[in-house]
Amino acid sequence: MKLYFSPGACSFVPHTLLETAGEPFEPVLVKLHKGENFSPEYKAINPRSQVPVLVDGDQVITQIVAIVGHLADRFPQCGFIPRDPLARTRMLETLAWMNNTVHPTFTHIFMPQKFADSDAAKAELKAFNTRLYRGHLAELDALVARAQAQGKPYLAGDNFGPLDAYALTLARWGGIAGIDPTAFAATWAFVQRIAALPPVARAIERERLQLNLFKPA
Amino acid sequence: MKLYFSPGACSFVPHTLLETAGEPFEPVLVKLHKGENFSPEYKAINPRSQVPVLVDGDQVITQIVAIVGHLADRFPQCGFIPRDPLARTRMLETLAWMNNTVHPTFTHIFMPQKFADSDAAKAELKAFNTRLYRGHLAELDALVARAQAQGKPYLAGDNFGPLDAYALTLARWGGIAGIDPTAFAATWAFVQRIAALPPVARAIERERLQLNLFKPA
Ligand SMILES: N[C@@H](CCC(=O)N[C@@H](CS)C(=O)NCC(=O)O)C(=O)O
Ligand SMILES: N[C@@H](CCC(=O)N[C@@H](CS)C(=O)NCC(=O)O)C(=O)O
Repeated sequence: MKLYFSPGACSFVPHTLLETAGEPFEPVLVKLHKGENFSPEYKAINPRSQVPVLVDGDQVITQIVAIVGHLADRFPQCGFIPRDPLARTRMLETLAWMNNTVHPTFTHIFMPQKFADSDAAKAELKAFNTRLYRGHLAELDALVARAQAQGKPYLAGDNFGPLDAYALTLARWGGIAGIDPTAFAATWAFVQRIAALPPVARAIERERLQLNLFKPA
Repeated sequence: MKLYFSPGACSFVPHTLLETAGEPFEPVLVKLHKGENFSPEYKAINPRSQVPVLVDGDQVITQIVAIVGHLADRFPQCGFIPRDPLARTRMLETLAWMNNTVHPTFTHIFMPQKFADSDAAKAELKAFNTRLYRGHLAELDALVARAQAQGKPYLAGDNFGPLDAYALTLARWGGIAGIDPTAFAATWAFVQRIAALPPVARAIERERLQLNLFKPA
């Protein structure tokens, strides 16, 4: 298997799952800041010019939600998706929210040019969506605290999985957005614990990630 | 089961699945244009103030992706999610794209106030995202044409499912965005066929939907 990823991007989610599965895979670094995702070569792989892309044999799979499902099928022993139907529904609910709401809100802050042209509109998108993002991180914090109160070691239950890696990524993006991630106490403690898991630590090392990027103004 | 829906909204997707399953359910109309989704009563059901919400016994489930998974579990005879792992991955890939990319692009056109305050920025968001939405509908059209070339009666294969209902919704929203949906020939023919399926026709009737809302300028 091959994973096209970019350091610190949402591709961190499948990156940590592959490290957890422990089967050898080829990580392929795509430099988004150099526009490598818009090269003809990359567009031949993913015409939408995004990471992550998982290549498994002759299958090219995009979209985190689909890649997570695929990796859960390939590595059933990892329990990336809970077996219990209700627990699975709850996990999908949170994964979908992270993927269709929190993640795109950050995109408005980090890449406002994806939504508007003028400098004024881009500045407004950044400010408006930073307020929303702060609210999302508070919601995430409540979710992490609830899982802990329920005695769950991970957000979906007993096994490390996509929600945990996404939570780390979203909290880390907070720092980039100018939001102090350590202010979300439950999340930040959880992120430290997740980052210390050996497979996650390997992904962090390969991507050379610093977890707290917040710089006080 | 109870479905909280709003006419013409994305809740049309689970609405058609419930009609297809054929088990009685209670449709609860939420008037988004009157702000009913922000009432204390509704926020007690879904603090995020959105439709759809599916209530099944004591479970309150949000997020289309999770609701689709839940309905597929509850009505396995309907084949809402393909059983073959690869076909399921492909289905999830398209569902995720519709849900995290195409749908939010329309939201920028229909509800720009969700992303910015000023009239100038909102006007720019509308114009910019209308261009993007046109591109998404072209991509959807290619996808519909490919499924047909492969002899698939529905987008995920042999059974009517979420992709088909979402495709109808996204094409219909094109008209609201000022894009002529009939220009996407494969999609528009497909939408007519889907709309004529009895369970889909019942959902259209209950929501009193007109499929083509395009008004030439
Ligand atoms: N809907 C996609 C989103 C992927 C995405 O947002 N990728 C970002 C990095 S976090 C990207 O590749 N951005 C580059 C670009 O769009 O130019 C998924 O869920 O996988
Ligand atoms: N991420 C949600 C999105 C749901 C959504 O966008 N619902 C819209 C209608 S299509 C809504 O309720 N909008 C009202 C509002 O946000 O004020 C899902 O996938 O279910």
